[in-house]
Amino acid sequence: MSLDVPETNPQDRLGAYLAEEIAAVDVLIRARMASEHAPRIPEVTAHLVDAGGKRLRPLLTLASARICGYTGTHHVDLAATVEFIHTATLLHDDVVDESERRRGRPSANLLWDNKSSVLVGDYLFARAFQLMVGAGSLRVLDILSDAAATIAEGEVLQLSTARNLGTDEETYFRIVRGKTAALFAAACEVGGVLAEASDEQVRALHRYGDALGVSFQIVDDLLDYGGASGKIGKNVGDDFRERKLTLPVIKALSAADDGERAFWQRTIERGEQRDGDLDTALAILGRHGALETVRADALDWANTARTAIAVLPRGPLQEMLHDLAVQVVSRVR
Amino acid sequence: MSLDVPETNPQDRLGAYLAEEIAAVDVLIRARMASEHAPRIPEVTAHLVDAGGKRLRPLLTLASARICGYTGTHHVDLAATVEFIHTATLLHDDVVDESERRRGRPSANLLWDNKSSVLVGDYLFARAFQLMVGAGSLRVLDILSDAAATIAEGEVLQLSTARNLGTDEETYFRIVRGKTAALFAAACEVGGVLAEASDEQVRALHRYGDALGVSFQIVDDLLDYGGASGKIGKNVGDDFRERKLTLPVIKALSAADDGERAFWQRTIERGEQRDGDLDTALAILGRHGALETVRADALDWANTARTAIAVLPRGPLQEMLHDLAVQVVSRVR
Repeated sequence: MSLDVPETNPQDRLGAYLAEEIAAVDVLIRARMASEHAPRIPEVTAHLVDAGGKRLRPLLTLASARICGYTGTHHVDLAATVEFIHTATLLHDDVVDESERRRGRPSANLLWDNKSSVLVGDYLFARAFQLMVGAGSLRVLDILSDAAATIAEGEVLQLSTARNLGTDEETYFRIVRGKTAALFAAACEVGGVLAEASDEQVRALHRYGDALGVSFQIVDDLLDYGGASGKIGKNVGDDFRERKLTLPVIKALSAADDGERAFWQRTIERGEQRDGDLDTALAILGRHGALETVRADALDWANTARTAIAVLPRGPLQEMLHDLAVQVVSRVR
Repeated sequence: MSLDVPETNPQDRLGAYLAEEIAAVDVLIRARMASEHAPRIPEVTAHLVDAGGKRLRPLLTLASARICGYTGTHHVDLAATVEFIHTATLLHDDVVDESERRRGRPSANLLWDNKSSVLVGDYLFARAFQLMVGAGSLRVLDILSDAAATIAEGEVLQLSTARNLGTDEETYFRIVRGKTAALFAAACEVGGVLAEASDEQVRALHRYGDALGVSFQIVDDLLDYGGASGKIGKNVGDDFRERKLTLPVIKALSAADDGERAFWQRTIERGEQRDGDLDTALAILGRHGALETVRADALDWANTARTAIAVLPRGPLQEMLHDLAVQVVSRVR
């Protein structure tokens, strides 16, 4: 697959094409995160909901419903549902342990305490749940409840494999499919179900969302090591410092010699990190071409996403979803 | 209302009467908390699910369905749902902030870190959600999703009123209705809905669960000050040390003179606690008869619960639910 990067950002084009509906999603989100008796709830969520204004997941739901011919309004409810689940997940990800806090990890909950992050996240989950029940489709509820379980399972799996050099690619992909791709896939799938699309189209939407999510996460993990070029920039090295086993390191580990293995054991397994270790890590990744290989994997997944939606009706929405898969990977050069 | 305490514990009688069904609930809980890929999940939940073997909430669901003539099997799913929600709430309650941890508060998550408590709790919520979708009733989903939002709202409200001496009885009851009574009420109500009981009966079950839950929580808060006698025993004084505004203190505050108010400001608002402060607190509560007044409130709520179920079909189950309301309050002498 080549990188024919479209001239305008396809996510912006999606946002413009669905401007009215995404505005309705925003209104709904603001209304549902309000709480008459617990004003701390909108206080905690506002900075997340305002800051993360990209709305990628709700756009997927809206686009999936519309591309399959949906003309009702429940897709707005489901789009807000998906964003609430995403926001709740972010809040719960921010909960830190003493050990992490001591290591000075910056986190959104510097502003808010752990308990607020957890309980307000629970409130958003419950609000998401109410919204999707309101949409009135048991099949939609089935898909979203399965996704919620897969997300949580992926997050727990990630926790129990952190710092474990034995983590293989299979486990990495299981984690990514859980923590990231499950919500992308469900966001797309419920749009099709709402539109009463054919089974083939619903499956295609699921596959598209899944592959888009996987490629999205691989790219994120790659950018944390500076992208395919491995250049140290802002925000580079967080995963290394937090001793996460992501795809670049997993690839480099599988080809490591004794010295390199000792390096990963010291820095990731035992967490004894010194100045200059990130440069060494990048040098090792470069030596094995790990970053280029990971980028090729992300391209493969983006290609899977593009192929999946070939069965969907042609038109501007299909084109934008197609371009979106290209854009996700174009973030890394 | 007098205290005609029944000879056998009514919860044990309920458990014996519904032995087969509660055993099925246990089997379902164990099956659904398993996770092929994330073995940490059953590790974290096992001690909670095993230890908290009282199963009060699932018994309410089973009894409510059966008392209204239900003969199917979905009440087992809903009973497990309710227990999963309860367990998830316990896990999330255990998440502590640095400040609390520093104060040496004992907590179930001494065994597990904060992140595990949060993410495994999320997994249980998702599992609960899957189970109730499986029961296939949108009305049941409506009730349980509303309850989930009310629970979270109550928990957040509690958080933002902690240490605030301005907390009044109205706010206290709003918190209690959220964090405790909402799940009791929903547990009862969904049993009736599943059995396709009349609206009058469903409302009665809701009122019963709500009042039982409120009285249950008032008694809990009272026991934390040693019960109506105010005797210092094991586990007494946790709420005082954690600076929670519960009903006994709220009552005492409303009648406090300047010296007493200064005491509460120092110990609860500013958290400057010294040896002997708990004794002083108990003496102040005793001076105003606060503990006796709170006990009378709990009795009132238990009476409301008993009255509510008068419209339900007579028989052994109605009798046991009746006795259960008495038992809840009989914990305090």
